[in-house]
Amino acid sequence: MANPSLLILAGDGIGPEVMTEVKKIITWFGTKRGVHFDVTEDLVGGCAYDKHGTPLHDDTMARAMQVDAVLLGAVGGPAYDNLDFSVKPERGLLRLRKEMDLFSNLRPAQCFDALADFSSLKKDIISGLDIMIVRELTSGVYFGEPRGIFPDNEGGRVGVNTQRYTTNEIRRVARSAFELAKRRGNKVCSMEKANVMESGILWREEVQWVHDHEYPEVELSHMYADNGAMQLVRWPKQFDVIVTDNLFGDILSDCAAMLTGSLGMLPSASLGAVQANGRPKALYEPVHGSAPDIAGQGKANPIACILSFAMALRYSFDMGDDAARVEKAVETVLANGARTADLMDKDGGTPISTTQMGDAILAAL
Amino acid sequence: MANPSLLILAGDGIGPEVMTEVKKIITWFGTKRGVHFDVTEDLVGGCAYDKHGTPLHDDTMARAMQVDAVLLGAVGGPAYDNLDFSVKPERGLLRLRKEMDLFSNLRPAQCFDALADFSSLKKDIISGLDIMIVRELTSGVYFGEPRGIFPDNEGGRVGVNTQRYTTNEIRRVARSAFELAKRRGNKVCSMEKANVMESGILWREEVQWVHDHEYPEVELSHMYADNGAMQLVRWPKQFDVIVTDNLFGDILSDCAAMLTGSLGMLPSASLGAVQANGRPKALYEPVHGSAPDIAGQGKANPIACILSFAMALRYSFDMGDDAARVEKAVETVLANGARTADLMDKDGGTPISTTQMGDAILAAL
Ligand SMILES: CC(C)[C@H](C(=O)O)[C@@H](O)C(=O)O
Ligand SMILES: CC(C)[C@H](C(=O)O)[C@@H](O)C(=O)O
Repeated sequence: MANPSLLILAGDGIGPEVMTEVKKIITWFGTKRGVHFDVTEDLVGGCAYDKHGTPLHDDTMARAMQVDAVLLGAVGGPAYDNLDFSVKPERGLLRLRKEMDLFSNLRPAQCFDALADFSSLKKDIISGLDIMIVRELTSGVYFGEPRGIFPDNEGGRVGVNTQRYTTNEIRRVARSAFELAKRRGNKVCSMEKANVMESGILWREEVQWVHDHEYPEVELSHMYADNGAMQLVRWPKQFDVIVTDNLFGDILSDCAAMLTGSLGMLPSASLGAVQANGRPKALYEPVHGSAPDIAGQGKANPIACILSFAMALRYSFDMGDDAARVEKAVETVLANGARTADLMDKDGGTPISTTQMGDAILAAL
Repeated sequence: MANPSLLILAGDGIGPEVMTEVKKIITWFGTKRGVHFDVTEDLVGGCAYDKHGTPLHDDTMARAMQVDAVLLGAVGGPAYDNLDFSVKPERGLLRLRKEMDLFSNLRPAQCFDALADFSSLKKDIISGLDIMIVRELTSGVYFGEPRGIFPDNEGGRVGVNTQRYTTNEIRRVARSAFELAKRRGNKVCSMEKANVMESGILWREEVQWVHDHEYPEVELSHMYADNGAMQLVRWPKQFDVIVTDNLFGDILSDCAAMLTGSLGMLPSASLGAVQANGRPKALYEPVHGSAPDIAGQGKANPIACILSFAMALRYSFDMGDDAARVEKAVETVLANGARTADLMDKDGGTPISTTQMGDAILAAL
């Protein structure tokens, strides 16, 4: 059988730095465990724009369609802030999501015990938190037509975007949420604004349909997204799996990530349909951004990117035990007190570098 | 000169109970301060639907257009959950907002010192918090056309809503945010998703335009709404005034309200254009909902509704000193230890009733 294939798109800012640490772990799997990945690398985001005038070259897109999984660092930075909408670094990421049809975005919001003090929240509210947000990623207002900026009829302009969800789009992401819940706490909470949006009504009805017809054994509740934001702050442990649309998911998952105090630590997986080889189309990336303010200084925390690779092991390569091993190594080094700059108090001693953190995790594997 | 006129729409659930306490304060202003309000009362929401088959009767709407200010309790409840979208209790509220053209929704997120312990957040992060969220309230995805649920071309359905903002809609709400900032910390942060939505690009450009042409002396920053949610959790005190659209405002203001630990305490004002008499069209309402689970039990906290009336004194009747007097009375009773059930720890003694809280505030005036 061919080796599993990986396309690495390190991207901008701290992306390349954190990815360097992941590559060490990939090498470790080859040397120590006999699992060889065929790795290719390419550009995405600002660096792709600099070279090709587009944030995602067609050749890169084609390669992403062929590999078993894509691992992405981060895109964007102030140098690109004034670019046209159509060539902004983010468009590269959105094109990957859309063309690979990665409809199910898994965002664990997990509080690492050793880091609970970093949360803004009181310890009893946040410690031990482990929820999974499933965000629809290929539809909704991110992609709906018509869209654009047009002249209005008052001599000004009008900005238009369209929220649009179909039965199938809702059902397939709902299924992935119910599947995850079955392997976790068996509870799904679906969030929308069915009180003010018809697309929210359809969302609620279709999620309920999937529940009633296919997953009656999973506990399902519905919540308005504004209340969802409040409940996440009030008592996040009430949730197990949350399923929501692209835009609400963007905001609620970032909110949940920040609650944990472990923002620099959180990975994500974006999964599409299962293919003939039994693997879903998949892209893995840290939740954090390109952090241009610390790029190139060896300060970045590689853990979110390393944990994204662990998610790849679990969801793309059926290597759940190896994924757990990587996760365990991360926990061990944290418990031993290893801290990059983002994980330190103002008066907390000397932080270790990106490389040192990567090496420590490698040694703990 | 005619007395100032008020339309009271107590609505559903705990609405009528909390409004009873406000009416005592209105009476107090007549007796003790010689300020007589002409008060009329009417139905909105579920109770209006029960009587008229619509959540807002045309006569009520007409009256709302004539008075100086509307004071609303809360709408909705489980009895109405399965109603058609078009007659849901919320539609009454949305019709009021739209026809009165109340484009600027002021939501203070303030942490009451005596209640800082109720926040999920650590005390140093939340105590003393005082920010103002200005939410656009008459446009965006709440009202944009086309909207609805239609057959799709896969044998299923498609739910559609339209986000739509014009130059004028953005500029007028931006102005109200800058005006508020001038009387506060002189800082505005505008939130959108200009990285993925053209309506967000227009939002950013028009807010910037109003700043550059009319309020260059106010500090303006822009933030993506997902980052905004994170920053609200991380360090909310970085903000003074936040201005954002209808949907983001709904979620972010609820999130901010819950952060304070004072959710049951928070008022809101919804303001429209200034009229010939110098007063803006205006509706005041507590941020909390109808709380059907505790309705009719004398447990509700009337403070948010009382503080909404204080906002009416300030923004509709130019009675800033009297508003401050009401606010001071609330602070005094809290400092003295008066607590309704929502403000108690599990093991915190016996709560006082809605009526007792109202009377205590009255006595402290
Ligand atoms: C970078 C941006 C386009 C993206 C989004 O809005 O989806 C980011 O915020 C995310 O959540 O992955
Ligand atoms: C009741 C509902 C229609 C309303 C909204 O979504 O605007 C509420 O959540 C609010 O924030 O006032």
